Amino acid sequence: MFVDKVQTEGLAHFSYVVGDGTTAAVIDPRRDCAVYIDVARKRGAQITHILETHSNEDFVSGAVNLAEATGAKIYHGPAPDAAHYAETTREGDTFMLGKLTLKVLETPGHTDDSLSFAIYDRSFGKEAIGVFTGDALFIGAVGRTDFYPDRAPQVAGLLYDSLSKLITLGDQTIIFPAHGAGSICGDNMADRDFSTIGFERRNNPMLKIESREEFVRHKLEEHHYQPPYFRLMEKLNKTGMEEAPELRPPPLTIDEFLKAREDATLVDVRNTSAFLGAHIPDSLSMPVDTVAGFAGWLLEPEQSVILIADDEQQASLTAQHLARIGYDNVVGYLGTSLPAWAAAGQDFKSITTLDVEEVERDWREKHERQLLDVRSIDELAEGSIPGAQHIYVGELPQRLDELDPHQKYTVLCASGVRSTIAASVMARAGFSDVAVFMGSMGAWQQAHHKTA
Amino acid sequence: MFVDKVQTEGLAHFSYVVGDGTTAAVIDPRRDCAVYIDVARKRGAQITHILETHSNEDFVSGAVNLAEATGAKIYHGPAPDAAHYAETTREGDTFMLGKLTLKVLETPGHTDDSLSFAIYDRSFGKEAIGVFTGDALFIGAVGRTDFYPDRAPQVAGLLYDSLSKLITLGDQTIIFPAHGAGSICGDNMADRDFSTIGFERRNNPMLKIESREEFVRHKLEEHHYQPPYFRLMEKLNKTGMEEAPELRPPPLTIDEFLKAREDATLVDVRNTSAFLGAHIPDSLSMPVDTVAGFAGWLLEPEQSVILIADDEQQASLTAQHLARIGYDNVVGYLGTSLPAWAAAGQDFKSITTLDVEEVERDWREKHERQLLDVRSIDELAEGSIPGAQHIYVGELPQRLDELDPHQKYTVLCASGVRSTIAASVMARAGFSDVAVFMGSMGAWQQAHHKTA
Amino acid sequence: MFVDKVQTEGLAHFSYVVGDGTTAAVIDPRRDCAVYIDVARKRGAQITHILETHSNEDFVSGAVNLAEATGAKIYHGPAPDAAHYAETTREGDTFMLGKLTLKVLETPGHTDDSLSFAIYDRSFGKEAIGVFTGDALFIGAVGRTDFYPDRAPQVAGLLYDSLSKLITLGDQTIIFPAHGAGSICGDNMADRDFSTIGFERRNNPMLKIESREEFVRHKLEEHHYQPPYFRLMEKLNKTGMEEAPELRPPPLTIDEFLKAREDATLVDVRNTSAFLGAHIPDSLSMPVDTVAGFAGWLLEPEQSVILIADDEQQASLTAQHLARIGYDNVVGYLGTSLPAWAAAGQDFKSITTLDVEEVERDWREKHERQLLDVRSIDELAEGSIPGAQHIYVGELPQRLDELDPHQKYTVLCASGVRSTIAASVMARAGFSDVAVFMGSMGAWQQAHHKTA
Amino acid sequence: MFVDKVQTEGLAHFSYVVGDGTTAAVIDPRRDCAVYIDVARKRGAQITHILETHSNEDFVSGAVNLAEATGAKIYHGPAPDAAHYAETTREGDTFMLGKLTLKVLETPGHTDDSLSFAIYDRSFGKEAIGVFTGDALFIGAVGRTDFYPDRAPQVAGLLYDSLSKLITLGDQTIIFPAHGAGSICGDNMADRDFSTIGFERRNNPMLKIESREEFVRHKLEEHHYQPPYFRLMEKLNKTGMEEAPELRPPPLTIDEFLKAREDATLVDVRNTSAFLGAHIPDSLSMPVDTVAGFAGWLLEPEQSVILIADDEQQASLTAQHLARIGYDNVVGYLGTSLPAWAAAGQDFKSITTLDVEEVERDWREKHERQLLDVRSIDELAEGSIPGAQHIYVGELPQRLDELDPHQKYTVLCASGVRSTIAASVMARAGFSDVAVFMGSMGAWQQAHHKTA
Repeated sequence: MFVDKVQTEGLAHFSYVVGDGTTAAVIDPRRDCAVYIDVARKRGAQITHILETHSNEDFVSGAVNLAEATGAKIYHGPAPDAAHYAETTREGDTFMLGKLTLKVLETPGHTDDSLSFAIYDRSFGKEAIGVFTGDALFIGAVGRTDFYPDRAPQVAGLLYDSLSKLITLGDQTIIFPAHGAGSICGDNMADRDFSTIGFERRNNPMLKIESREEFVRHKLEEHHYQPPYFRLMEKLNKTGMEEAPELRPPPLTIDEFLKAREDATLVDVRNTSAFLGAHIPDSLSMPVDTVAGFAGWLLEPEQSVILIADDEQQASLTAQHLARIGYDNVVGYLGTSLPAWAAAGQDFKSITTLDVEEVERDWREKHERQLLDVRSIDELAEGSIPGAQHIYVGELPQRLDELDPHQKYTVLCASGVRSTIAASVMARAGFSDVAVFMGSMGAWQQAHHKTA
Repeated sequence: MFVDKVQTEGLAHFSYVVGDGTTAAVIDPRRDCAVYIDVARKRGAQITHILETHSNEDFVSGAVNLAEATGAKIYHGPAPDAAHYAETTREGDTFMLGKLTLKVLETPGHTDDSLSFAIYDRSFGKEAIGVFTGDALFIGAVGRTDFYPDRAPQVAGLLYDSLSKLITLGDQTIIFPAHGAGSICGDNMADRDFSTIGFERRNNPMLKIESREEFVRHKLEEHHYQPPYFRLMEKLNKTGMEEAPELRPPPLTIDEFLKAREDATLVDVRNTSAFLGAHIPDSLSMPVDTVAGFAGWLLEPEQSVILIADDEQQASLTAQHLARIGYDNVVGYLGTSLPAWAAAGQDFKSITTLDVEEVERDWREKHERQLLDVRSIDELAEGSIPGAQHIYVGELPQRLDELDPHQKYTVLCASGVRSTIAASVMARAGFSDVAVFMGSMGAWQQAHHKTA
Repeated sequence: MFVDKVQTEGLAHFSYVVGDGTTAAVIDPRRDCAVYIDVARKRGAQITHILETHSNEDFVSGAVNLAEATGAKIYHGPAPDAAHYAETTREGDTFMLGKLTLKVLETPGHTDDSLSFAIYDRSFGKEAIGVFTGDALFIGAVGRTDFYPDRAPQVAGLLYDSLSKLITLGDQTIIFPAHGAGSICGDNMADRDFSTIGFERRNNPMLKIESREEFVRHKLEEHHYQPPYFRLMEKLNKTGMEEAPELRPPPLTIDEFLKAREDATLVDVRNTSAFLGAHIPDSLSMPVDTVAGFAGWLLEPEQSVILIADDEQQASLTAQHLARIGYDNVVGYLGTSLPAWAAAGQDFKSITTLDVEEVERDWREKHERQLLDVRSIDELAEGSIPGAQHIYVGELPQRLDELDPHQKYTVLCASGVRSTIAASVMARAGFSDVAVFMGSMGAWQQAHHKTA
Repeated sequence: MFVDKVQTEGLAHFSYVVGDGTTAAVIDPRRDCAVYIDVARKRGAQITHILETHSNEDFVSGAVNLAEATGAKIYHGPAPDAAHYAETTREGDTFMLGKLTLKVLETPGHTDDSLSFAIYDRSFGKEAIGVFTGDALFIGAVGRTDFYPDRAPQVAGLLYDSLSKLITLGDQTIIFPAHGAGSICGDNMADRDFSTIGFERRNNPMLKIESREEFVRHKLEEHHYQPPYFRLMEKLNKTGMEEAPELRPPPLTIDEFLKAREDATLVDVRNTSAFLGAHIPDSLSMPVDTVAGFAGWLLEPEQSVILIADDEQQASLTAQHLARIGYDNVVGYLGTSLPAWAAAGQDFKSITTLDVEEVERDWREKHERQLLDVRSIDELAEGSIPGAQHIYVGELPQRLDELDPHQKYTVLCASGVRSTIAASVMARAGFSDVAVFMGSMGAWQQAHHKTA
């Protein structure tokens, strides 16, 4: 009897292969789903069931593709939109895999169709030994409940009830959530890989809240960002999406690149330093490990994309990240380094970096540059620089009109990565003088003897 | 905060890398220990502590090698023999790894120096969230207590007390034992990868025993085999063992093989069917996935070994299994198939296989062949064939004098794998007519409408 | 400027990626063609041309699939059947890849549409530096000319003329043929990976023949086997074949196997010894490295196939070999060892092996068993056993009526591999007593002091 | 019979595994020599001979290590310094590997101990089919002859004689040289992977020179750089060098880094753009694929090195490049990105990049900045900017006193890679204002309508 976790970097998404003997189920598969077949095979099992804890909004589901590849059946909670590809399953339904039983618990709140699946070992006792909690219960946190703004208090209350139901499974129950620290599907998750109902009951701040009312009040005060691509995911996960394309963008010669760029967005996935040092004019900075987090904010799904990458591996990894959130239009990547690009007579740009002394001098004395803080609103609570304007990097494309293209800006975030992304957005929009505060709030707080 | 399991096939041994942030500890490392450094690196951590739950008797410890490779310190329970390579650690000692704390519990019984290590997350509550239980508590079972035969009731009682101590950690505690199903370090383990104190408390048959007296009585009735190599492990794990040799035995030409065989034992690690069909005279059958279980019974540690293997990969895997239990003398493998060996004019042998009808006919009517059952004594309880002599395959080399080399034998086990091993031992000892009952008790019981 | 060889095991087929700078051509791609894209990428090149030396009869061409994957154009010699997927190219046509030029030479004989492609380096001199010779010229041998039996002397003469044309390229020209030692597309190839026109001119026995007449006479005396699947290849390579299916047959439980076997041929790809020791009744022995050579003789293309394999890797490799010759109907493989199969109460069989002494005794004294030699006709010249009947293993299914199912047979080949294949064919056809002479002619000749 | 090339990137060094049947020889092994054992095993062969074409000056020989690992014997030409680890072999000596014969030709000139090894196939004819030419004959070029400056004309003449000897092997002979395009062991090699004596005889510019005198005159006019590490290699390859250390530098936390840097040189192996954008003060830029070429110029062998790398893979690759030329002192790499480094309050620097317009404006009008061209002297012939000072990047550390630290410099090369290396050398030496001309001569010539 096994539970194998498949982790999707960037999205901090956890899917699972659970099984016993020769049969297995997959919980919440992602789009590139060959990995599940691999995992099951290593366990000597075949995938017979695909279970979704809810309609995911932050990635493209692989349920339909996996079902086609394996012949397994898909089960989903009560949601009209899922009915055409999945059988509806409800409270109390059970699935048998060898001596393992999965039992359905309806646990709405995060979404109306949210399910949990409790794990029983029929050869050992009657208590649950584990539970897949989807986006209802995380380690150290609980799911967000802001997807139905018109009935926010109601769904927050539903989540409270669902969590109460999960607690009744007993302290001995190991929890297997759908996300870990770093996901935008919940706040303040613990950076720990394992927990139990018993441990969460005593230590999860949201489970320690005693009254339903207080729980709801607390939920209503939370702030969450919703990247525009969430809408796309909702749509795609209703209609189903075809299998991911070949995730190996071809290298482009400079001539091919020049031709292809006319219809494409340029996305530079090299690291932040490299973008600052030299980049192709009008390209967006989006280091490869930020792609899962920011492509959904900064790119249009239907738009063709050309990558500027260090090598094929980095380009492929980017294409994989993009495909997982439904962006399939990567045309290729520039098969040439920036020095070679420049040596071929092509234009390049750099971005000025400022260190903490330079930023502070301007802030105290010269007042030539407007500080722009692009961190998320939650991070402001950890400290900020007086006078800095705040726009979250993800919202920047929609809110550029709040800024003045002729003003000189110094962009900051926590370190310099997101401020470089923001600076690239602004440079592309024609801002004439945008510098990056390298080190950003980290350096600022070090310089002012405060801990970040 | 993470716990990554490193599983050693064949021995069903579990070691762990546990850590938080940039530091990690390894629990019970095996001899080939580069894997731990890999695992820690993937987590972004360096190994700073090596903890042993007890002096292992079933494999060579990698603690000293890993300490050399990483600079980490080794900690071990109160055992005079371990003092020269490890610091002694005792009840209540703690180790800090980022926000994770490991706390020592003395849990003797399996051995006198047995420790458990409880896991705490200092950023979340005061309860334990997990515990490394070594060979004290397994999933569905508990450790064997037969290593001190002169004070057997006492050590069984100590284990009872240790288990009671573990239970006080609370139902929410996830357990991480040193072995899983298939190990000879405990009986009747559950074939499940995960459990908690709460679940075991209610469902582990040994934890459900109410009185200390009954627990002790139960333990004294158990039967365990002790392969001769356990002695070697005890010795090696006291003195320390150098790093494993290059685990890539060279292919031997037939000429090289003929020369090398003079001083070596021939071990045929191809599958059972292949050995039955054609093998080199005097070779022992030991399919690669049985090597960890039977080399310690059938091979002398200091003896040179030549493998007969399908390919280099199989030969290397065998050498790895052998090195993990301290057998370093693999000379090479025959780089030639059996047909090519025979075509070079070399001798080969086959073993007669009998099916259930042939066995039954002889058993009922002809009485020409003596049945020899080589399963473990515990398995006899599942059914046996009246009149069959019983000697456990592991003990066969020591007990050959109980058999008559001129008698015709039909060897049986559960399927045919161990009976082929036994037949090879007997053929090498000069028995003239040894056949294998292919299908063995499985086929017998199918034929008699009983479930195995 | 590079030529990278892609070797297809089993078929001893060589295809090539040749290129310079950022462009490359592929010569004679096989069906599973992702490898060519990989090779080209490592060279920093994209595939722009696909060239076929002729319509291959021994494997499925990957030209159409590779063209789809890369956008490259396909070029083929003058053959009406190829016109719908390839552009026709003729003597003197040239293709430019960076500074490399490929120049077409029409070299008919093996087939009417045979081309060679000479390699020139435009930055260095005017002589050819290499030539792709297809099946016209091999290392140490030349192509077979038996595909047009009604005009055999004519095509043998054409090959003579083609070889004369190749020699005019000059001694300095490196040759890159389409096959190496082990292929059935030519006899007596040298077991050397590299040669030049100059070396072949002086040392290739067929190029040393002085007159056209003698060359033709020599060719007409050759004997070649034509496996039935050659017809299939001809058809498929005219019509094109879709991309190979997922080459990863699923493991089957015993129940699934029993159900699937009703409509399928059982092919046991484990090694010869394992088949001899225990196999499933009515299965064909075909060790994985003989599949490319014998599937085309012994299997029907449209027939479903179930594999008996040691593991998934062996099953996948078999499926790959089969797909390369157009057999796509692998249903799965038995995910269970033979001992486990037998222990589940299922039937199994063994095959008796005889050693050289037993064979000789019967041959000299007892005369109970008919010897059946299944080697190729060419091998008989190396020695044979008087009185042995000869039928080539590939032709056995068609010629079983020349044998008597009630006769006892001892089958032999060079070592035991092909005789076991033959024995499995005979057992499946109901022959009651078929034994394998393990060691076969190798052992016989060793015993009689002759070198094999 | 096979020749498998093992290519060492960076050094453009070719070593070979040549063999037949079950035996193989290695020609000119590099220090990390497990690859040769792998290659031989895939061919089913064991390494029995190690042959050196000469005492290599550009990398550490692996002959001694490989001999220890395999038991093979080492053979070297007449050189007193090699006698203690190798047997001396001389003109006409032969080595048998299956049906393959290697025959020694003394071919001095590049070094006094230079040998070539001609390949014969004893089963086919008497002519050579190939030859390992070491550093005597390359494809399109010949070896340098500047290592004995006091008797330069004599050794150039020796090389002429050696080449004449090689030509007598015949046009059909395939050549296997020790270096390819990009090596500093010869000029103007063809960027082609394959050639023959016949093709070189007609097309190699140095072989087309008719008289010995003219050949010598031509050689004496050549200019070659000798990196300081050549001396080290000579010494090491005399004394032998122990096996390379574990080539997996550990990641360092910022604290570990700060402590370790006190005794170490910082080498930034990220790409050029990343160094320009942000780097740690006093670090040297040396992108990973330039390490083999420039470490021997810019680093002291005994000096400890800390890497700044994108990831562990890049750090390991760097350590491998360094070990191959005898630099074993890599302490670790900074396990943190530059933004994180800056966010921790640490200092960083950027380098100003200038584009062709900015450079030209200063050059024509402002005259504020001195142009410094760091290309090799040979490249100046392809065009240069009037007024630019020239110092080869490799010689820069020794010639810094020719420059003025208070002068503003614009450094240029062919693209920007080597100028960034040079700029890092100058910045570390305290130069106050050093900018990089991104695009360099490539961009300059594009802007002035000339082809590079």
